[in-house]
Amino acid sequence: MVPTNIRVIYGDTDQMGVVYYANYLRFFEAGRNEFLRAAGARYRHVEAEHGILFPVVEANVVYRHPARYDDLVRVETTLAELKRASLRFTYRVVRTDDERLLAEGHTVHACIDRAHKPVRLPEPIAELLRAQTLPG
Amino acid sequence: MVPTNIRVIYGDTDQMGVVYYANYLRFFEAGRNEFLRAAGARYRHVEAEHGILFPVVEANVVYRHPARYDDLVRVETTLAELKRASLRFTYRVVRTDDERLLAEGHTVHACIDRAHKPVRLPEPIAELLRAQTLPG
Amino acid sequence: MVPTNIRVIYGDTDQMGVVYYANYLRFFEAGRNEFLRAAGARYRHVEAEHGILFPVVEANVVYRHPARYDDLVRVETTLAELKRASLRFTYRVVRTDDERLLAEGHTVHACIDRAHKPVRLPEPIAELLRAQTLPG
Amino acid sequence: MVPTNIRVIYGDTDQMGVVYYANYLRFFEAGRNEFLRAAGARYRHVEAEHGILFPVVEANVVYRHPARYDDLVRVETTLAELKRASLRFTYRVVRTDDERLLAEGHTVHACIDRAHKPVRLPEPIAELLRAQTLPG
Repeated sequence: MVPTNIRVIYGDTDQMGVVYYANYLRFFEAGRNEFLRAAGARYRHVEAEHGILFPVVEANVVYRHPARYDDLVRVETTLAELKRASLRFTYRVVRTDDERLLAEGHTVHACIDRAHKPVRLPEPIAELLRAQTLPG
Repeated sequence: MVPTNIRVIYGDTDQMGVVYYANYLRFFEAGRNEFLRAAGARYRHVEAEHGILFPVVEANVVYRHPARYDDLVRVETTLAELKRASLRFTYRVVRTDDERLLAEGHTVHACIDRAHKPVRLPEPIAELLRAQTLPG
Repeated sequence: MVPTNIRVIYGDTDQMGVVYYANYLRFFEAGRNEFLRAAGARYRHVEAEHGILFPVVEANVVYRHPARYDDLVRVETTLAELKRASLRFTYRVVRTDDERLLAEGHTVHACIDRAHKPVRLPEPIAELLRAQTLPG
Repeated sequence: MVPTNIRVIYGDTDQMGVVYYANYLRFFEAGRNEFLRAAGARYRHVEAEHGILFPVVEANVVYRHPARYDDLVRVETTLAELKRASLRFTYRVVRTDDERLLAEGHTVHACIDRAHKPVRLPEPIAELLRAQTLPG
């Protein structure tokens, strides 16, 4: 699990006074980026050096409790599944001041090349991800 | 089913050259608003006159094919389930120029009052929604 | 002047109950796109066929009166200045139900090629824009 | 000057491969929040305890050089002017790895109460802001 802290701004909220539901997918992306960075597989480099993209094929969010303006939330990101040509991340969004679970969800990603064809995840990247996932 | 047309702007896209995955939830919301308006239950009025809110408790998107800048997409919104204190909408996002399905998904909403307590959907609103759902 | 109607969604608002200030720049972009389309110079085609981009070099917004959820606003877009290698658009955002001016502003754009070098606006595009600007 | 670091995510970019122009206003807001926090006048508290809001009445951005995905940018926020019933912040957005200036701009804010009437900035808040602005 890789933690990422995010401070909620006004621009994340809506007139219900809580974080707008789409913005949790932004939080998930920030968490995913930090997971990949922690694994030594920064997504910027995966794209630039390996010509590999991880487009989202499915996203799911369950909203437990609203995040509010100025909350410091922690996104906890885990690589739950690593297949030949796809990845599945799971996320928990927790409010840091009372550790309350605000939302959880997952995303599934394909692995494609620049021509947008599905390809096998390159072994050097797969190894880095496995090491981050199962650090034992 | 209620259709809502949306023109994709630059601000909806990301550097992969396609609509950013979180923005489909904005499209779904636009579709939901138009569904409620078509039913005669504009959400603005549901909030203001009945003191009822429909916060999202779950959202799901399956991404089939990317939407791109300047595409005119049609969100097709259906009320799939209407329970005592919750609603479930389903959505299909279709590119209008070739009728290709780009994404589909659903959202589940609670029905709460201003004190954020779950409440039964007021009968006048439930009737309007049933009429829109089953127009026979 | 080219008008573009936009329906304000929940996702555009913030917890002050009004449209978040950054989102007016999204509205301006929607207006700019429709201006170019009306001129016969769809930005998608300007990019794809002429290899020309119009990155923003300055943006300004003056906020007069707040736009709110479910408002139908009209963005009025005008090409105020057309130089050799730059354009300046002005915008007025008006609430349609009472014609109240909500915001106004401008953007300045450079004209660059794919190599990100400043270039002269191609004459065929310049002609289309002049025709839209001064339809006399 | 108060610095705030922000990591650019995919959701901040557009298909030109750079940060979408409206998102700099989100960066400015994050900087403004941290300025107020550093001053001991967290905006959340200004709202809740003093019943004071700082709606934006003008925003301006000059775009010097594009920010890109995964850049770590620093927003440098300064309170440039503190009048009886208004504030003016200036911002510089700098890429941290080479200290390149990416954008700069300002926002002007009114001081209003919950009834949306212009009011004088409460003296305790004004004092905190002056102390942060001129720490000598």
